[in-house]
Amino acid sequence: MLNHRITLKARPSAIPGPEHFKQDVMPVRPLEAGELLVETMYISIDPAMRSWISSSSGYTRGVAIGDVMRAGGIGRVLRTQAEDFATGDLVQGRTGWQSHPILRARETQKLDLSLGSIEDWMGPLGTSALTAYFGVRDVGGLKPGETLVVSAAAGGVGQIAAQIGLIDACRVIGIAGGPEKCRFLTQTLGLHGVIDYKAEPDLAAAIRRACPDGMDVYFDNVGGPMLDAALANLRTDARVVLCGRISQTVATEPYGILNLGLQGGKRITMRNFLVFDYHDRYTEARAWLSAQIRGGRLQQQLHVVDGLDNAPLALGMLFRGENTGKLIVRAAA
Amino acid sequence: MLNHRITLKARPSAIPGPEHFKQDVMPVRPLEAGELLVETMYISIDPAMRSWISSSSGYTRGVAIGDVMRAGGIGRVLRTQAEDFATGDLVQGRTGWQSHPILRARETQKLDLSLGSIEDWMGPLGTSALTAYFGVRDVGGLKPGETLVVSAAAGGVGQIAAQIGLIDACRVIGIAGGPEKCRFLTQTLGLHGVIDYKAEPDLAAAIRRACPDGMDVYFDNVGGPMLDAALANLRTDARVVLCGRISQTVATEPYGILNLGLQGGKRITMRNFLVFDYHDRYTEARAWLSAQIRGGRLQQQLHVVDGLDNAPLALGMLFRGENTGKLIVRAAA
Repeated sequence: MLNHRITLKARPSAIPGPEHFKQDVMPVRPLEAGELLVETMYISIDPAMRSWISSSSGYTRGVAIGDVMRAGGIGRVLRTQAEDFATGDLVQGRTGWQSHPILRARETQKLDLSLGSIEDWMGPLGTSALTAYFGVRDVGGLKPGETLVVSAAAGGVGQIAAQIGLIDACRVIGIAGGPEKCRFLTQTLGLHGVIDYKAEPDLAAAIRRACPDGMDVYFDNVGGPMLDAALANLRTDARVVLCGRISQTVATEPYGILNLGLQGGKRITMRNFLVFDYHDRYTEARAWLSAQIRGGRLQQQLHVVDGLDNAPLALGMLFRGENTGKLIVRAAA
Repeated sequence: MLNHRITLKARPSAIPGPEHFKQDVMPVRPLEAGELLVETMYISIDPAMRSWISSSSGYTRGVAIGDVMRAGGIGRVLRTQAEDFATGDLVQGRTGWQSHPILRARETQKLDLSLGSIEDWMGPLGTSALTAYFGVRDVGGLKPGETLVVSAAAGGVGQIAAQIGLIDACRVIGIAGGPEKCRFLTQTLGLHGVIDYKAEPDLAAAIRRACPDGMDVYFDNVGGPMLDAALANLRTDARVVLCGRISQTVATEPYGILNLGLQGGKRITMRNFLVFDYHDRYTEARAWLSAQIRGGRLQQQLHVVDGLDNAPLALGMLFRGENTGKLIVRAAA
């Protein structure tokens, strides 16, 4: 059996694309004890991937030149040398950008399809959704009646964060780029307001118009000047959730945050976090997310790119803001 | 009776000085019910004063042109139209820069000299000390054995913050400017280490040498590039206490913070605060501070400038870093 692989060829200086990756085909080696051979079905495309392939990798070990690109995904077990896993099982794990990964069983999880469909496990039950769940509720401490502003609100994490705010009876304003994403946020998801940052010359003023009394929680996926504009509009006791900073991971010039004073209010709390720190609460979170999906209160638009070959293209789309919703690659039918 | 007043004449663009103030003498008006006539003894000179006289005043209403400069101080009651206050009582209140303020009794507090001397009430029992107490313990959540770094460590708030760290069994590193302040911090106060920022071309590297494993709490009185250098040296779960940003209150060019990513660690919490929010816990804090003073574990170097006339000069000294310790003006013997 052959494994179609996409490996890292060169580190990007800005937005990654096909020129930074190499494709090849290798025979699949025999399984060792505790391993599974999986056929990849879906691969998740996430902003964190950019830091994995940068030279100064951040919180997690980077991908070496020549290595298969790291990625989370879903697949079907073809062969197994592990108890508790059978051929045909649907599993979630670190598939990487390859058609036939060998996964360690102890790092792999069987999908519980009673919680949602395979596609739900790539979307509103997936890692992006868990990130939104812990970010809004635990890190942000959002309370009913508060005002939540979410940047990159039409993105993978942002859509879920915004809907959690609605479910928790808050006033929710999204920031997104372009009329299509903005329409989706208000008309499909039902947000109270939306700011098209591409159409606003003064983002701080636009946020002020949308939140005349300031915001209680800012869920930041973007960083840079958008974070500064939000910091100018905080209420007393506001919380800033530093989830991502997609604008800065590909910026060639770093942007310095100016509004770290008392501009927006007092007793401001700013926190970053990693979803993996909440690993022992994933079950609790997925039970809640599943109940919301079944109740019709939580959905996620998936932006599906077909074909494993197109994973490098898809990664570039993410940093150009070309996706609406959670970006995934469909590797096999 | 005559009141010697110092009023605001012009708003400074950078460091304030005598040119921004006017001195005059006015007769004292008769007291109304609930008022006290006080003879000022000591006036506190604090970084927050700079924001009170800037055009875009921050968290508190600014001082208007022509108004007496606002300040906290200690004085002796000369006349009283308020129950509970007698002639000769020593009180703390918003004296302002004037020799004979009229204070509202309900905004004025009698000194409890069982807790410490008059000078202690300007120093380790004063508002700067309360700021350090709540900043280190409540906002910073400092725990025994952790590493605390304090900027402007030889200043009014910094000295107390650093000593609270020592009392709470932490490793304490101070940042200060010049050999005299640094010697004071290590030899007199007993800090574990000190960084002379004026002698260090690369502050982030100097902090790294002093804290090879990073810091758990950064108590920031300075802001700007020093904050950025500290943010590069945070441990996982670190807390950043944004207490002041004296470098930025007088900066002509605003400095943008670059290290708001994951440079230093994860689960970083950054908080600003105002000591006034802890008003109902001042008694608790002063009881603790008093016990430390009596036990010989807490002291404060006072930098005394003589003469009410010199208050504008003293304010300028603060922003040029010319004081070692809590800066106060002695208005009368």
